[in-house]
Amino acid sequence: MTDLPVLPALLVTEAVRAALREDLGRAGDITSAATIPPEATAEAVFGARDSGVLAGMALAEAAFREVDHGVVFTAVRKDGDRLERGDVAARVSGPARSVLSAERVALNFLCHLSGVATATAALVGRVAHTGARICDTRKTLPGLRSFEKYAVRCGGGWNHRYGLDDAILIKDNHIAVAGGVVAAIERARAHAGHMVRIEVEVDSLAMLEEALTVRPDVVMLDNMAPDALRQAVALVDGRAVTEASGRITLATVAAVAETGVDYISSGWITHSAPSLDLGLDVTTRA
Amino acid sequence: MTDLPVLPALLVTEAVRAALREDLGRAGDITSAATIPPEATAEAVFGARDSGVLAGMALAEAAFREVDHGVVFTAVRKDGDRLERGDVAARVSGPARSVLSAERVALNFLCHLSGVATATAALVGRVAHTGARICDTRKTLPGLRSFEKYAVRCGGGWNHRYGLDDAILIKDNHIAVAGGVVAAIERARAHAGHMVRIEVEVDSLAMLEEALTVRPDVVMLDNMAPDALRQAVALVDGRAVTEASGRITLATVAAVAETGVDYISSGWITHSAPSLDLGLDVTTRA
Amino acid sequence: MTDLPVLPALLVTEAVRAALREDLGRAGDITSAATIPPEATAEAVFGARDSGVLAGMALAEAAFREVDHGVVFTAVRKDGDRLERGDVAARVSGPARSVLSAERVALNFLCHLSGVATATAALVGRVAHTGARICDTRKTLPGLRSFEKYAVRCGGGWNHRYGLDDAILIKDNHIAVAGGVVAAIERARAHAGHMVRIEVEVDSLAMLEEALTVRPDVVMLDNMAPDALRQAVALVDGRAVTEASGRITLATVAAVAETGVDYISSGWITHSAPSLDLGLDVTTRA
Amino acid sequence: MTDLPVLPALLVTEAVRAALREDLGRAGDITSAATIPPEATAEAVFGARDSGVLAGMALAEAAFREVDHGVVFTAVRKDGDRLERGDVAARVSGPARSVLSAERVALNFLCHLSGVATATAALVGRVAHTGARICDTRKTLPGLRSFEKYAVRCGGGWNHRYGLDDAILIKDNHIAVAGGVVAAIERARAHAGHMVRIEVEVDSLAMLEEALTVRPDVVMLDNMAPDALRQAVALVDGRAVTEASGRITLATVAAVAETGVDYISSGWITHSAPSLDLGLDVTTRA
Amino acid sequence: MTDLPVLPALLVTEAVRAALREDLGRAGDITSAATIPPEATAEAVFGARDSGVLAGMALAEAAFREVDHGVVFTAVRKDGDRLERGDVAARVSGPARSVLSAERVALNFLCHLSGVATATAALVGRVAHTGARICDTRKTLPGLRSFEKYAVRCGGGWNHRYGLDDAILIKDNHIAVAGGVVAAIERARAHAGHMVRIEVEVDSLAMLEEALTVRPDVVMLDNMAPDALRQAVALVDGRAVTEASGRITLATVAAVAETGVDYISSGWITHSAPSLDLGLDVTTRA
Amino acid sequence: MTDLPVLPALLVTEAVRAALREDLGRAGDITSAATIPPEATAEAVFGARDSGVLAGMALAEAAFREVDHGVVFTAVRKDGDRLERGDVAARVSGPARSVLSAERVALNFLCHLSGVATATAALVGRVAHTGARICDTRKTLPGLRSFEKYAVRCGGGWNHRYGLDDAILIKDNHIAVAGGVVAAIERARAHAGHMVRIEVEVDSLAMLEEALTVRPDVVMLDNMAPDALRQAVALVDGRAVTEASGRITLATVAAVAETGVDYISSGWITHSAPSLDLGLDVTTRA
Repeated sequence: MTDLPVLPALLVTEAVRAALREDLGRAGDITSAATIPPEATAEAVFGARDSGVLAGMALAEAAFREVDHGVVFTAVRKDGDRLERGDVAARVSGPARSVLSAERVALNFLCHLSGVATATAALVGRVAHTGARICDTRKTLPGLRSFEKYAVRCGGGWNHRYGLDDAILIKDNHIAVAGGVVAAIERARAHAGHMVRIEVEVDSLAMLEEALTVRPDVVMLDNMAPDALRQAVALVDGRAVTEASGRITLATVAAVAETGVDYISSGWITHSAPSLDLGLDVTTRA
Repeated sequence: MTDLPVLPALLVTEAVRAALREDLGRAGDITSAATIPPEATAEAVFGARDSGVLAGMALAEAAFREVDHGVVFTAVRKDGDRLERGDVAARVSGPARSVLSAERVALNFLCHLSGVATATAALVGRVAHTGARICDTRKTLPGLRSFEKYAVRCGGGWNHRYGLDDAILIKDNHIAVAGGVVAAIERARAHAGHMVRIEVEVDSLAMLEEALTVRPDVVMLDNMAPDALRQAVALVDGRAVTEASGRITLATVAAVAETGVDYISSGWITHSAPSLDLGLDVTTRA
Repeated sequence: MTDLPVLPALLVTEAVRAALREDLGRAGDITSAATIPPEATAEAVFGARDSGVLAGMALAEAAFREVDHGVVFTAVRKDGDRLERGDVAARVSGPARSVLSAERVALNFLCHLSGVATATAALVGRVAHTGARICDTRKTLPGLRSFEKYAVRCGGGWNHRYGLDDAILIKDNHIAVAGGVVAAIERARAHAGHMVRIEVEVDSLAMLEEALTVRPDVVMLDNMAPDALRQAVALVDGRAVTEASGRITLATVAAVAETGVDYISSGWITHSAPSLDLGLDVTTRA
Repeated sequence: MTDLPVLPALLVTEAVRAALREDLGRAGDITSAATIPPEATAEAVFGARDSGVLAGMALAEAAFREVDHGVVFTAVRKDGDRLERGDVAARVSGPARSVLSAERVALNFLCHLSGVATATAALVGRVAHTGARICDTRKTLPGLRSFEKYAVRCGGGWNHRYGLDDAILIKDNHIAVAGGVVAAIERARAHAGHMVRIEVEVDSLAMLEEALTVRPDVVMLDNMAPDALRQAVALVDGRAVTEASGRITLATVAAVAETGVDYISSGWITHSAPSLDLGLDVTTRA
Repeated sequence: MTDLPVLPALLVTEAVRAALREDLGRAGDITSAATIPPEATAEAVFGARDSGVLAGMALAEAAFREVDHGVVFTAVRKDGDRLERGDVAARVSGPARSVLSAERVALNFLCHLSGVATATAALVGRVAHTGARICDTRKTLPGLRSFEKYAVRCGGGWNHRYGLDDAILIKDNHIAVAGGVVAAIERARAHAGHMVRIEVEVDSLAMLEEALTVRPDVVMLDNMAPDALRQAVALVDGRAVTEASGRITLATVAAVAETGVDYISSGWITHSAPSLDLGLDVTTRA
Repeated sequence: MTDLPVLPALLVTEAVRAALREDLGRAGDITSAATIPPEATAEAVFGARDSGVLAGMALAEAAFREVDHGVVFTAVRKDGDRLERGDVAARVSGPARSVLSAERVALNFLCHLSGVATATAALVGRVAHTGARICDTRKTLPGLRSFEKYAVRCGGGWNHRYGLDDAILIKDNHIAVAGGVVAAIERARAHAGHMVRIEVEVDSLAMLEEALTVRPDVVMLDNMAPDALRQAVALVDGRAVTEASGRITLATVAAVAETGVDYISSGWITHSAPSLDLGLDVTTRA
């Protein structure tokens, strides 16, 4: 796996603060205030209760820091690492009230993002014998795009565009309004500067052939069966990057990859990834 | 199903704006700007591509409105309705650029929240022959708690506390630090006012018996097998609300419900609910 | 007095930053910039110029820290302490410009919140011979609810609900629309989950009797004279928590408490509490 | 009374949204959702339950609008008007849920700001036979300064500076560090541009005399008895605006005003003004 | 000129609100409140006092709308239009206070963005006889990047990347750390997905030749004299897009363009563009 | 030059964070992440590539700190200092990725604000032989007013009002609506408190004479030729501060200053100041 991207610290802090505001509400953690003396301390470990790929450690760490700078968070494993059931991901120690108040926010980020990384890694594993890369889509959960796309990288996947503004992706509706795939690509090229990639979605070999006459950077082969994909890859013959999309599952991804496509995009890894089960266990109290 | 809660319009608007900012970035929808003339219009329908329960229509509507007040959103179905594959949930019409620019944000909310409602409804359906109610937890995705908890209601479920501040839930770590379950409940009662419920987590019948001596409002019976749950319900005998929790699945929930517990809480319905597949199809262009 | 709640650090920081922005405006403290050399230092004390109960030290401390991390704030007394005229609550030392720039924001929080605590303590003192507890309402100053409710606790009072969302309080208008007190309570119970308390406002013994048939958690006895309150308490006979409300004053509160009600709620302690007079005196300059 | 200032609509909207967020929390108004059908409508009146001066109508109106654009708010009286007990200030009509959900936020602004206006008017009334003007200070409640200063104008008072940045006010601590009152004023003049007023606080006639040699725009005569104030006014003899400050009360303000000072500043009118009792009564339901 | 990008309405509204907050401060427009009766109306025109290219009409319109929905803004010309001295760009009519309160914010956006468009158009005009395109950089004024880059398009220029995150641009420092230009490009390619362009900065023909062996998408020819640029273009021979950068001026840009480069990037058009002189003249008052 | 104002740390931090968010986008600095190992460090210097006056060091420092607290920023020169080409303004050292990620934001502030200071200093230099002071206007770039006005002070200039709310400036439109210059000033005086200055714009000697009968604090002599200005100054004869405005240039400012006016206001120094060329050069890598 290549180096991970660097999540800007500002984004991490802001997302964690918003999550803490959401959980602490107007009155804070009234259970800890009621039951735990201010001077009590605790040590705890983040442990995996299932196997998967870790992602989101910076967010977990920030949850404790933003509640209380006095909590020490020590990473034992790092984003992208594979965890087996029982593995320890991190340790925290500090004031018991603070540890317990930040626990849920830390876990909510960590379990979701590790879930995304784990789902990604599952697809990646199924295509490891091919040259295909798994990538994400814009089907992310609102407010979490930067983090989910980062988690996709932790799972060995690749990122498609981050938003509507950083690359052009011409879909069926654009083509219909623009008056055909050639016209649409030409309009896109006339509009875009030199730092913007242009991708076009095609759903048949005929349409692909037409599109290739005006040289898109990437072609999205949408909802094509493996046979059609294989023909499409042959037709493209290196003139564009190829991306297969549409209802990719663990069961089907290998067959898709074996057609020779460059990328396979999946919405499932972000919008439906099951949470990875991690928990915080208090080990020592004083 | 009882009446749905009312999502405050302010929360809807703010969440949708944040999601649009995330998707539109610094340059907006460059594909639509390039390929679609400003005067083009479109009509489109939100259709279900799978069956499930609808949730989040206010957010979908807001996505279009916040991009362009000129887009008309017409609800055909309402939150809480069951959709079958092919059903139309809503129609939109207006400037084609605006319709396409808002589409993904609208769908990201709608598919996720309908996924939560659908997962909830699946559990609810399994326990319909009992008196048990399905409820949620604080295991929600960061930033989406209000909406996910609303979606749980759309699916026929019930809400547990919204945050750390609106009810007391005493867990194992609190009990350990407080010096026992009785001491913990007594400290909680001494701290809390008259508008705050107190729940305590117990993991054995002995601990339950001890807890009941100081009359918590709710007892959480954590990770107990059906037999133990049945004994616990008998022991409580109406002196507290009973809630079963821990690794509830579609396969096990009926057996849990049949023990006579009042509530069954599930993190899965929020943190791991698969997205419900809805799509936007453009039907007319001008 | 029981343990105080824990004000989330995030809320403190955000409120203090907003207040500093309000006071420093676009150009900052132009008087200090003009008259005080950058290298000058100062030591100063927060002193009570009247007697009362201290509340808001975390906000005062944050005001200095957010202006300049180089200012040292040393608490001499703590929230909930009773101050007599002349008592020192805290000391600050550091760059003179920073001390003077943050002074007013620190005092505006401290004097107001100590005023709330002092007003609360005055009511609490009048009912000390009874079992009644003083509690607050939602009649708080916009933007300051978390802090005012915290200050009520510092003064020995208790908190009613924090907002419209964390408990149900059925008032006359709800009852009228719902078609009677019984119907209203039943609708509330059908809507609310197991973590939400239900209170109902009644203004006569007949209405109280009717309400009790459907077992609300709390009954608010609104604007009843002591005799009626006494009868109401007898009628309730432990079946619900009782709360007296309406035009509670220092002069009348003891008579209300002596009726045996559990809680007495007062808007006056938050919306009309006179500021407690505290000042900052510079003691040393260099 | 002169024309009132114009509260920027942006400030009104933002403050009201923050207050609604604070009250509606994460789940909104659960009582109205439970007990009031969505189609119910209501008409209600804002009535005075005590006499005083009205202030804050724009904020009350905004509270309803921001909850629901379908609520119609009709002002019957306007800011600055004197209300007698029983007077109607405004009417609202619309969806019953929305009317009740916005009620408390509207009242919290209206009662507090009318309280500030009423307190101001009380002082203004006591000095009506003199040329003295009542003005405010920076002793305002955090987050509410713009609105409180506006309310002071509604009550017939005048505004002192809005923050640390829009005028220079040299106090004892600045003078001590700067090395005397003359040096401090000279430093201020050397620093300030031509659009900034310079005021200096003096606490004796000797200090006043010294200050006048370097021509401040305004002199604050702090904590001086009426006799000393009279001598100070004579000494100034029109060379500066005079302002009396320090422990001004309803009992003492007339005597202070009769000394001939131009302005009398009071922190009490903002930090300790009792709320004006206004309520919302539902008059019709459908 | 190609179609203009679409500025997201959300970005426009937020930037305008921030600017209004900055100008209206805590007390609003005190001059208009003092001198203009609430009922006075005004009509006014935005006129050019110099010639140039118009940009920013949506922001000007929003300034009036955000102050007062009752002001009507009528565009006479549109973004990208060339204005001559005396031309009218827009008309506004409505309450006189509101027109005057919003005027400066509207002009500050309009004059700056039109200045950027005008500076861009000046460079574009000098290279019209060549195939070279003028593009911008990240040397924009903080907070205004989206709008300045939009204005560059209004002036006939093209946009380089919008931020650090939407394209890779490898500069001298990256190359030095990475251990050479080939290694740097290879690391970039190994890191980047298929939707991200890779550009590399070179400052000599030798370095260019080396870079081309690993096929960057774009080569930035930094601070090269026309002769070197011409050789570089020949060397590239269509294998990459070419971009000239470094101290481009009105005097030198034609010579640079005549070397055959594809793009010429200029920081001057955003960081140093003189404001275009537009003014608002009131034409009618009532 | 007098002491500089103190930029509130809160304003600096917030502006820098917004600028970083704008530059880092959703994915952060992908070039550095790709090409620079996490452990690499760098030392770099901010050097002047042209001569001018430095302004904005606090913002440059904050850019590095907000990206990474591990970067050390060492100021070599301070705001207000004159730099010659080649001078070093500051040094930074720390993680290479962080240094490069923050570089552009730091420079964008520093080059723009130093540009404002340099333009101001150029005008100040032309009038040094007179008593005239150069001051700014409200013609600032949206969002940057506090910083640009601070930079004007760094360049030896003075500040006019910061916004519409902190001083009264009566212009032609106000006068026309108010019914003449005398009426307008009288209305302003009746409205304004004692801490607000009143300035009036006049464009003829006759109008000036009329205005002076009601004693404004400041008269703005708009677009008058030097001869008229000289007569105006004589006419005022110390009864008001005089300010010349309108199309002030480097070529004309001396002649304006020699007429004896007190202040000369210029929009050019903020809205059109060319950026000062500063750059960051990496000197050491490890």
